[in-house]
Amino acid sequence: MDDLGETARPTRAVQAVRAEAPSRPTRAGTLRERRAAVLSPSYRLFYSEPVELVAGRGAHLFDAQGRDFLDMYNNVPAIGHSHPGVARAVAAQAATLNTHTRYLTAGLVDYAEALLDTFPAELDRVTFACSGSEAVDLALRMARCATGRRGIIVSAHAYHGTTALAAAVSPSLGPDNPLGPEVVTVDPPDPAEAPGDFAARVAAAADRLEESGAGAACLLADSIFSSDGVRPGPVGALPAAAAQVRARGGLWVADEVQPGFGRTGAMWGFERHTGASRDAAGGAGISGAGASGVAGSGTVTGGAVARDGEPGEAGGADDVPDIAVLGKPMGNGMPISAVIHREALGREFGQRVRYFNTFGGSPVSIAAAQVVLATVLGEDLPGRAARLGERIARGMADTGAFSQVRYAGLFAGAQLDSAERAQAVVDALRARRVLISASGAGGDVLKVRPPLIVDDDDIDRFLTELDAALAEVGR
Amino acid sequence: MDDLGETARPTRAVQAVRAEAPSRPTRAGTLRERRAAVLSPSYRLFYSEPVELVAGRGAHLFDAQGRDFLDMYNNVPAIGHSHPGVARAVAAQAATLNTHTRYLTAGLVDYAEALLDTFPAELDRVTFACSGSEAVDLALRMARCATGRRGIIVSAHAYHGTTALAAAVSPSLGPDNPLGPEVVTVDPPDPAEAPGDFAARVAAAADRLEESGAGAACLLADSIFSSDGVRPGPVGALPAAAAQVRARGGLWVADEVQPGFGRTGAMWGFERHTGASRDAAGGAGISGAGASGVAGSGTVTGGAVARDGEPGEAGGADDVPDIAVLGKPMGNGMPISAVIHREALGREFGQRVRYFNTFGGSPVSIAAAQVVLATVLGEDLPGRAARLGERIARGMADTGAFSQVRYAGLFAGAQLDSAERAQAVVDALRARRVLISASGAGGDVLKVRPPLIVDDDDIDRFLTELDAALAEVGR
Repeated sequence: MDDLGETARPTRAVQAVRAEAPSRPTRAGTLRERRAAVLSPSYRLFYSEPVELVAGRGAHLFDAQGRDFLDMYNNVPAIGHSHPGVARAVAAQAATLNTHTRYLTAGLVDYAEALLDTFPAELDRVTFACSGSEAVDLALRMARCATGRRGIIVSAHAYHGTTALAAAVSPSLGPDNPLGPEVVTVDPPDPAEAPGDFAARVAAAADRLEESGAGAACLLADSIFSSDGVRPGPVGALPAAAAQVRARGGLWVADEVQPGFGRTGAMWGFERHTGASRDAAGGAGISGAGASGVAGSGTVTGGAVARDGEPGEAGGADDVPDIAVLGKPMGNGMPISAVIHREALGREFGQRVRYFNTFGGSPVSIAAAQVVLATVLGEDLPGRAARLGERIARGMADTGAFSQVRYAGLFAGAQLDSAERAQAVVDALRARRVLISASGAGGDVLKVRPPLIVDDDDIDRFLTELDAALAEVGR
Repeated sequence: MDDLGETARPTRAVQAVRAEAPSRPTRAGTLRERRAAVLSPSYRLFYSEPVELVAGRGAHLFDAQGRDFLDMYNNVPAIGHSHPGVARAVAAQAATLNTHTRYLTAGLVDYAEALLDTFPAELDRVTFACSGSEAVDLALRMARCATGRRGIIVSAHAYHGTTALAAAVSPSLGPDNPLGPEVVTVDPPDPAEAPGDFAARVAAAADRLEESGAGAACLLADSIFSSDGVRPGPVGALPAAAAQVRARGGLWVADEVQPGFGRTGAMWGFERHTGASRDAAGGAGISGAGASGVAGSGTVTGGAVARDGEPGEAGGADDVPDIAVLGKPMGNGMPISAVIHREALGREFGQRVRYFNTFGGSPVSIAAAQVVLATVLGEDLPGRAARLGERIARGMADTGAFSQVRYAGLFAGAQLDSAERAQAVVDALRARRVLISASGAGGDVLKVRPPLIVDDDDIDRFLTELDAALAEVGR
């Protein structure tokens, strides 16, 4: 991509924004100094030399000097930064109507139907919210209400959000963020294990909750275990664990905020584990990812690709979560999230507890979400993610620098031997204008998670720069 | 306003939206039936005969038949439905860049500075989130972290949001929504009381929390006590109560989600109680509302207006909240909210607890918020709210139908003798295409809360239709 040619348009658009939205910079100093003087101390910036951005297009971000950064990190702009279709839909809707869900509006219902059509038939109801955190928070309230139990099982380095309740089930926030008294952690699945090993840990956790008197309201699991260092396998681990929780009166809540909307090669992350999929228009769902159902996902150790197993091993009723939580890419950056659930689960909650989210499902966010869903399905982005993800994982493994590359579609975790080394690679790539990050309990996993519309040229550039960065850091 | 002339534009824009954002209505039935089949059981619609909306302009909403509804209810579109400046800023920014706060972006910092300039100097830091609920949830986490105490004092019929923690401090959600174990309620202020009466109740609540071992982390109070039936007075009640909580080691958290951004005649609701105001450009702040500082607010009982007192009676340090929570009108419908706080309060929280909100402070929401703030300040909407609010309150009182009309700016609560009567008036007004609602612990208070750009013609229409509705229902 030509830097100069591509940045001309964004820069003009930025000038238009500045003219439209009067701002009043009132203080002295560099942007970074001014920022530190007004934002809360909890704000962080990426990189010791932060990136100042003014525009984005596709998988590219641009700074004030017009320099092009390849975005291999951001999962929110799934169909591309500043997607023109999203921008047009948002513009038209913002100029027409933006109100709440206590009046009837057609877009909300049209979108809810189209969204539910991508799920197995059991998941037949939706509640909209603004953020993944709000959706996780609501899902846990619903699970507790439906089961009459309080306990929540999460993985050892899980991250589920920022509300008080979501933070209480997010051990990755560190030792100063105490977990809730009814929260029990289990080690995440490992590709070298049998699916039943994770299920056995979850069963033991549920038993502990039962003994404590809290009982297990649910297993809450990110279907790709992102913050645990990306754990796509073994396939079948999630439904096997769900069976154990259900046998003890609890539910399976699938956190699809990161894996959802096609990233892992299936429309929904849980489908990789189960084979459960409604026939969705446009070839989405796991069938679109290839005949095996897990093409585009696996573990590369020492150059050999090990598939993570075959889906549907648990079989039957345990294939479908009770609740799925959606977020990040849902509106391509417009704040929208959702809780998808089985109707019966929401009945008592709906009767007993009022839930109204002022901005949840508002027409502008819905307009953006409609374009995202139509694009993901219409352009078979799950299939594309499976195909391109395979290329990225194979290319990373070919560098010989990683002890393991775990991946599912366009979500890859490449294992290094220390957090320092991982950070050094992240920084060397930033200097080469490629954005990624590190993840995992040890901070020693490179996390690669580009917009779904990343193309082969972008991947060439990424692999070239990765090679150079690794050479700099020393293999 | 001419119905046909005004609806032509919205209808064309709606058609454009439909063309841009492909939807896939997949099911049979009326819109209402389809809605009930896909949304969670907790969703509600206003009115037994719900309003289906396709467009909005200023203080007017339009249904599919092009009928014009006068909006005297919605506080989110503060500067008018589908505000053209907001729509243009959102459109330009969505076509340019929409990312998160871990990269440097200028708009975030420009806006943070301009927003903080409207607060007293002590309130010098901001964290952005998506919804009022998220902001309340964060404010409570910060208050607990800063004080090492757990207890929260709220008013008897308070509503503060929908996360698990926000719901746990929202008794208005009803008996099936249990309050948190460390939550204590107090009766809200009454205009007939002295400011010290509310403070005495808060002091007693804080003492109970101290005895329980939890301690009082904060008084969390909506500065207009909306869900308690609109309680603008007596002026001075909030700082007097804050002094009691502070003497016991707790904080004052001002919930400005409803009163904030000029609605009550002051820029911030707490300023009505304290006289605290930074000199803001454009005449905002309480000084803009008139020399007395409480012009445009009061209580009308039997035709006589009683002012709610003089501001600043508590004096000094207790005039300024420790934390203020903003939401609803902040982005005129774009999902954005904020926690404003004293720097020291966020220091330990920032060091110990990671807080990152993916969509919080994202460029598109900030672009909308910049236009809202510039409009509220530039067009002196607080002063306008004070002036027009006086007209509405006086006009409602003149009907002779209400035992009391309590108001501050464009937020009025008109007291009837039963919930049935209040609902009958709400329904009769809906039949006359005027939207309001009922509020208060008994559901017997008419809540009138139009967009801030409502004009004198709109108010004429409202008062005419109110008169007719009251005649129908019987005075």
